[in-house]
Amino acid sequence: MKTKKFLLSESQMPTAWYNIVADMPNKPLPALDPRTKKPITAEAMSQIFGEELVKQELSTERFIEIPEQVQDLYKIWRPTPVVRAYNLERMLDTPAKIYFKNEGTSPAGSHKPNTAIPQAYYNAKQGIKYLATETGGGQWGSAIALACQYFNIDLRVYMVKVSCQQKPYRKLLMNAWGANVIPSPSDTTQAGRDILAADPECSGNLGIAISEAVESALAHGEDTRYCLGSVMNHVLLHQTIIGEEAIRQMEMAGDEPDVVIGCFGGGSNFAGIGFPFIRRNLCEGKKTRVIAVEPASCPKLTRGEFQYDFGDTVGLTPMMPMYTLGHTFQPANIHAGGLRYHGAGSIVSQLYKDGLMEAVAIPQLETFSAGMMFANSEGIIPAPESCHAIALAVREAKKAKEEGKEKTILFNLSGNGMIDLYAFEQYFNNKLQDHELPESEIRRAIDELDKIIK
Amino acid sequence: MKTKKFLLSESQMPTAWYNIVADMPNKPLPALDPRTKKPITAEAMSQIFGEELVKQELSTERFIEIPEQVQDLYKIWRPTPVVRAYNLERMLDTPAKIYFKNEGTSPAGSHKPNTAIPQAYYNAKQGIKYLATETGGGQWGSAIALACQYFNIDLRVYMVKVSCQQKPYRKLLMNAWGANVIPSPSDTTQAGRDILAADPECSGNLGIAISEAVESALAHGEDTRYCLGSVMNHVLLHQTIIGEEAIRQMEMAGDEPDVVIGCFGGGSNFAGIGFPFIRRNLCEGKKTRVIAVEPASCPKLTRGEFQYDFGDTVGLTPMMPMYTLGHTFQPANIHAGGLRYHGAGSIVSQLYKDGLMEAVAIPQLETFSAGMMFANSEGIIPAPESCHAIALAVREAKKAKEEGKEKTILFNLSGNGMIDLYAFEQYFNNKLQDHELPESEIRRAIDELDKIIK
Repeated sequence: MKTKKFLLSESQMPTAWYNIVADMPNKPLPALDPRTKKPITAEAMSQIFGEELVKQELSTERFIEIPEQVQDLYKIWRPTPVVRAYNLERMLDTPAKIYFKNEGTSPAGSHKPNTAIPQAYYNAKQGIKYLATETGGGQWGSAIALACQYFNIDLRVYMVKVSCQQKPYRKLLMNAWGANVIPSPSDTTQAGRDILAADPECSGNLGIAISEAVESALAHGEDTRYCLGSVMNHVLLHQTIIGEEAIRQMEMAGDEPDVVIGCFGGGSNFAGIGFPFIRRNLCEGKKTRVIAVEPASCPKLTRGEFQYDFGDTVGLTPMMPMYTLGHTFQPANIHAGGLRYHGAGSIVSQLYKDGLMEAVAIPQLETFSAGMMFANSEGIIPAPESCHAIALAVREAKKAKEEGKEKTILFNLSGNGMIDLYAFEQYFNNKLQDHELPESEIRRAIDELDKIIK
Repeated sequence: MKTKKFLLSESQMPTAWYNIVADMPNKPLPALDPRTKKPITAEAMSQIFGEELVKQELSTERFIEIPEQVQDLYKIWRPTPVVRAYNLERMLDTPAKIYFKNEGTSPAGSHKPNTAIPQAYYNAKQGIKYLATETGGGQWGSAIALACQYFNIDLRVYMVKVSCQQKPYRKLLMNAWGANVIPSPSDTTQAGRDILAADPECSGNLGIAISEAVESALAHGEDTRYCLGSVMNHVLLHQTIIGEEAIRQMEMAGDEPDVVIGCFGGGSNFAGIGFPFIRRNLCEGKKTRVIAVEPASCPKLTRGEFQYDFGDTVGLTPMMPMYTLGHTFQPANIHAGGLRYHGAGSIVSQLYKDGLMEAVAIPQLETFSAGMMFANSEGIIPAPESCHAIALAVREAKKAKEEGKEKTILFNLSGNGMIDLYAFEQYFNNKLQDHELPESEIRRAIDELDKIIK
């Protein structure tokens, strides 16, 4: 029985976020205004997002200073530990070394406060009084609720209806932090009413919830903005503190990761752990494999197409270049609610297209099986989303054993699953299943997309 | 917006537990065999508890080394942070400085693994294969489930029925860590069957659950022992790592606490934070006030009597000298399940009798109100038990303001409330109430006790 964690002191915490755009050999294509098909202007974006966040969205600066007040709030739980998972290694009887970065130690239980806090900070600084947002699994919603509370911002959260049902405690957590939570699709927006008219039983998805939140923010007036917890460049930027810390911690451990793994929904925790390691590949000649793990039931990277598409289901956002399953794709009701999103974000999509990262899709049951292995060996209940990263770490460790090779694996534990235990109960009781996803279903939404674009 | 946490490195983690018995001016009276009324022998105790734990129970050594394997497992989450609660201070507009020790960062979410791990370790070392225990709020049950998993021990947990209903996720957590959870009173023991025969609707309490767990362990045979998460000397001993760390951390902060606060059920988190500070009062001439906070609906210290009493409801345990409400006292169904216990443990009772510590009883609604204040200012959802400690810290901070005095307050945040959010929902929806506890109800159970003792 053994464990070893690698901790940075507060003074060793990175003071800048890493903007990967600066180092990309092919820059991401611009987002387009859906009406004009021309690149969207900063001014137009500023109607939706806080000004400073729009600047970051379009920035090509390599490092962006973290404001002091944000650093102070980060220190409530940061720096987070990197842990050597000796017990999991022994359980797998593998020659591989397995490390994980534990982002589940934040007050909201996930990596999401890394971006929630700066988003609330910049909006408050600009004088914004209200924010609207959406949430899938509830991790983002609770993080931004926490952050809005620090900065006295009123928050409205559209929460995917099926997640509301699967994760009632997530809703309670947002309420405890003062947010108004609305199950989506709802009758509070035109987008929601239209979808409910077509399908009154619709269980919702992130794309629909985004439509509702954007519509709600635009309708509310000058002192209101929209915000979101993944996909966009500025969000991924804020998460890079994860990987920047992890690089320093792997140095402390005296190990160099061969493989870096993050689960993949919109890209935020993946970018967080992965981009700083891709930076070293691009700038320092390292050869770390950086791998995104998506659910087999929502495989935009491994089975989607690189296309311009909307970020939401209805088509209110700018069109972005992305690997996508089509914005009308309706993923199965897997428990990893945070990964049920049709597209991949323009930076990750470009990196993937250029072969600078890899992607793997894993079915739900395998992820829960790996998550239980982790809970039993390392004592931490992982979030269903994080189980995807664990599942690939387990695959890689088993492969190392088969091949008799040493290997160093680092994965990001994006969140703990303490308030997602319902999902594990379902798993224990054999109530979960894997969802076959026929090629025809993927083609349907993508073909629909083709019609819109042309 | 500001926060400051004080962290020890792993190498600064204390390597010994503190045994307050060594320094007590009046040693605790011995536990008695209920049949003979003579002090119970180590041999008799070893039928129930692991041998090494019995040695610790009776030890008068001042410091007891923490085994290396236990230290290794502690390092999964220890040392835990001490945090300066600047935001709470500002919300209260108080001249007082408020610090808290955050024990909610363990994998089980509370301080309980501090003793669960050594208990599982010593039992496993002795060759024990099965453990039986009880749990109130579920914090202890989940901690010992985690620990038993590390040491391959099969665990059966009798969980107070009302807590099972209030905290379904706690049960799921124990299941996730491999424990068999039985709502108590149950039909698996004679004690449970008798109580159900008298009152089929009985919602249970810790005393009944102890009766069931002890009976179950005794019936199971040679390779089985009973274990518990509070009250006994060896349990309190293991928790002193909390206070020993906190002393070093307050030195780092350059502050000296005037008041040290812990919530009080059986005494384990209170002793954990408090005993090392009482040691400094006894041995180093310090004058720190050390205060236990109990629920107004279960006020054994402030309204009970110092008597010999049973640890359980039925009367299977040795008789212990304790402040007690009588072992047949049935506390109201407050959400702080871990504080619903009729007695106080012999060491704490002796310390309280000798004026070496203080006690305060606080009604439920005030504790939730303080807990929400803490969640809103410091961003951490506290366990309902811990809300009691917060409530007294708030009272003390307000008093400092009224008196215009500086004051340094340290309280123990015994656990986080992420999977107790149901309690907060009840609080938000005005479904909670304070429970009047008439003197006659307290007299009833104590008078009953008098009859047994004489």
